[in-house]
Amino acid sequence: MTTIDPMPGPASRSADPALDDLVSLADIRAAAATLAGIVVRTPLVPVGLPTEGDAQGHPRTWLKAESLQPIGAFKLRGAYHAIASLEPDVRARGVVAHSSGNHAQGVARAARLFGVPATIVMPDDAPAVKVAGVRADGAAIVFVGAASDDRVATADRLAQERGLTLIPAYDDARIIAGQGTCGLEIVEQLAELGHAHEPLTVLAPIGGGGLASGVATAVKALRPDARVIGVEPELAADAQESLRSGRIVHWGPELVGRTIADGMRTSSLGPLTFRHLSARLDDIVTVSEAAIRAAIARAARQARLVVEPSGATSIAALDVVVPRPGEHLVAIVSGGNIDPDRFLETLAAADPRAR
Amino acid sequence: MTTIDPMPGPASRSADPALDDLVSLADIRAAAATLAGIVVRTPLVPVGLPTEGDAQGHPRTWLKAESLQPIGAFKLRGAYHAIASLEPDVRARGVVAHSSGNHAQGVARAARLFGVPATIVMPDDAPAVKVAGVRADGAAIVFVGAASDDRVATADRLAQERGLTLIPAYDDARIIAGQGTCGLEIVEQLAELGHAHEPLTVLAPIGGGGLASGVATAVKALRPDARVIGVEPELAADAQESLRSGRIVHWGPELVGRTIADGMRTSSLGPLTFRHLSARLDDIVTVSEAAIRAAIARAARQARLVVEPSGATSIAALDVVVPRPGEHLVAIVSGGNIDPDRFLETLAAADPRAR
Repeated sequence: MTTIDPMPGPASRSADPALDDLVSLADIRAAAATLAGIVVRTPLVPVGLPTEGDAQGHPRTWLKAESLQPIGAFKLRGAYHAIASLEPDVRARGVVAHSSGNHAQGVARAARLFGVPATIVMPDDAPAVKVAGVRADGAAIVFVGAASDDRVATADRLAQERGLTLIPAYDDARIIAGQGTCGLEIVEQLAELGHAHEPLTVLAPIGGGGLASGVATAVKALRPDARVIGVEPELAADAQESLRSGRIVHWGPELVGRTIADGMRTSSLGPLTFRHLSARLDDIVTVSEAAIRAAIARAARQARLVVEPSGATSIAALDVVVPRPGEHLVAIVSGGNIDPDRFLETLAAADPRAR
Repeated sequence: MTTIDPMPGPASRSADPALDDLVSLADIRAAAATLAGIVVRTPLVPVGLPTEGDAQGHPRTWLKAESLQPIGAFKLRGAYHAIASLEPDVRARGVVAHSSGNHAQGVARAARLFGVPATIVMPDDAPAVKVAGVRADGAAIVFVGAASDDRVATADRLAQERGLTLIPAYDDARIIAGQGTCGLEIVEQLAELGHAHEPLTVLAPIGGGGLASGVATAVKALRPDARVIGVEPELAADAQESLRSGRIVHWGPELVGRTIADGMRTSSLGPLTFRHLSARLDDIVTVSEAAIRAAIARAARQARLVVEPSGATSIAALDVVVPRPGEHLVAIVSGGNIDPDRFLETLAAADPRAR
């Protein structure tokens, strides 16, 4: 594995002392060491026609396939890193988390790997495939209504009553550092392919913002010339509105609940992810529901990957972001946990030419 | 990338001088150097429930996802290595190949990467997705009847008439060495995960035998304790019959044409792959058509991978091979080029519990 040193340019910690408590590249490197042998170093899968690559047909458009993690999503990175950082006696009492699905599976798997009990609070409309994943890892599940606020209150209460440690889904430095290892890998892998000095844009889906915060931290520290662009569904674009207005905007469940991207129905960024994204993200673009569906079909056809709607948003954004000359575009496919019937129905409805 | 030294035990070249012309570990290492940056170092994707792993839930069943290569199959390894080994003036005149699909795509892509013309002879019943892949890389296609013999004769004639170099699909030392890099990666990747000394069985699909020959060479040289087991459809089990009878047995197109595994409809092993497999393979198992279909659904559901029927044979074989205590099973998923309608129809027909 190649180790990449930061390029000359802005350091990973800002000159602004108000940003000194943000996650640093060193934090992400430490997380990577903890995660070695636990998470899959997911491949950069080339996508698109050879004519879209460089003159020799070498690809320039890539999917970072986090769908190939053991739990089918990047969330194992942050969850395992957070649980690893607990004092052993605290960890032994057990952990609790609230999540629509993939963070739930990450915490359940990480707890299992440490041999400690996990309790997961899930919305009652979570995809069956994600509920089954949590169950298979032996975690206890508490179902609540679909609203994100119910989940938070229930998890907090369980933590207090039972002495469990809450593992936050995104607004936590350990989680952000863990998710950031995905960005570290992208920069390393492109360098291994000989593209260390070619223009780069990384597209990262934004739900609560943990992945995008960590990835932006790693990528911008190592490649200050690179762009990191967040992606949201048009129907759940609270992060875009937050960054544009300079304050955290909440979108209620009646709004975010409209998107098929079930992993992105969070009501808002957290204070910590808002600050990371404000300082380090270049932009946020949005994609339509139709584009998300088409991207699921495109991933199956062109990259032989099963991706979930949230994971498909960054693929859809490949058609929105204008590449700079010679630029590599990397779309982070955050997960692949899609209910089989939804997957089938989406493929069947796709434009045959796009399949 | 970790470099693995051969373990004490049988050397990679046999003591039998009659085997001295077989491909060696050194040949495969040389191929790996040629292929760096061209092929994807495909991941080992864990598959199965955590309860099927070790006591801590760490996985022991893996898919080596060659479906994630740029052309959707392992064939780019051998094709690129073979074309790279040509003298530049010979290469510049162009290459020709005959193939039902994935080798065609490998040769077309490799020729494109070298900027030389390619002509591909394909059967007229080749999957549309494979034909489209060859076209997208700018190769000329000549269609013939479904019989393998027609393809060979046509390709030989084109080579003679037009001064093209034939790139064989499997019975060639350069091809075997190229495909063997997949086995090298498996041993390296398991070592990186801390499993260098745990029992190992690798399952490799067999069409013409190039992949299994190369993989058996690499794996047995580095891990003499490991088993390498070939997999064939019951309906195209010519290699199993050949190894058991000690001579190359031909199955006509009316027999091998029955399987949905279109990449495995080769009539027979070649002299060179027969000798490699006779010397280095531990066994060949067969799988039913129903098991191949179920494995396609299992890969989508459990590993989030789109796999083609030939690639699914080794996944189906996971249920056939009895693991030794603590053993890691690695199924090589040879490719993911399946026509979208066939993929849809296979998923829709799958047992919902197995999806």
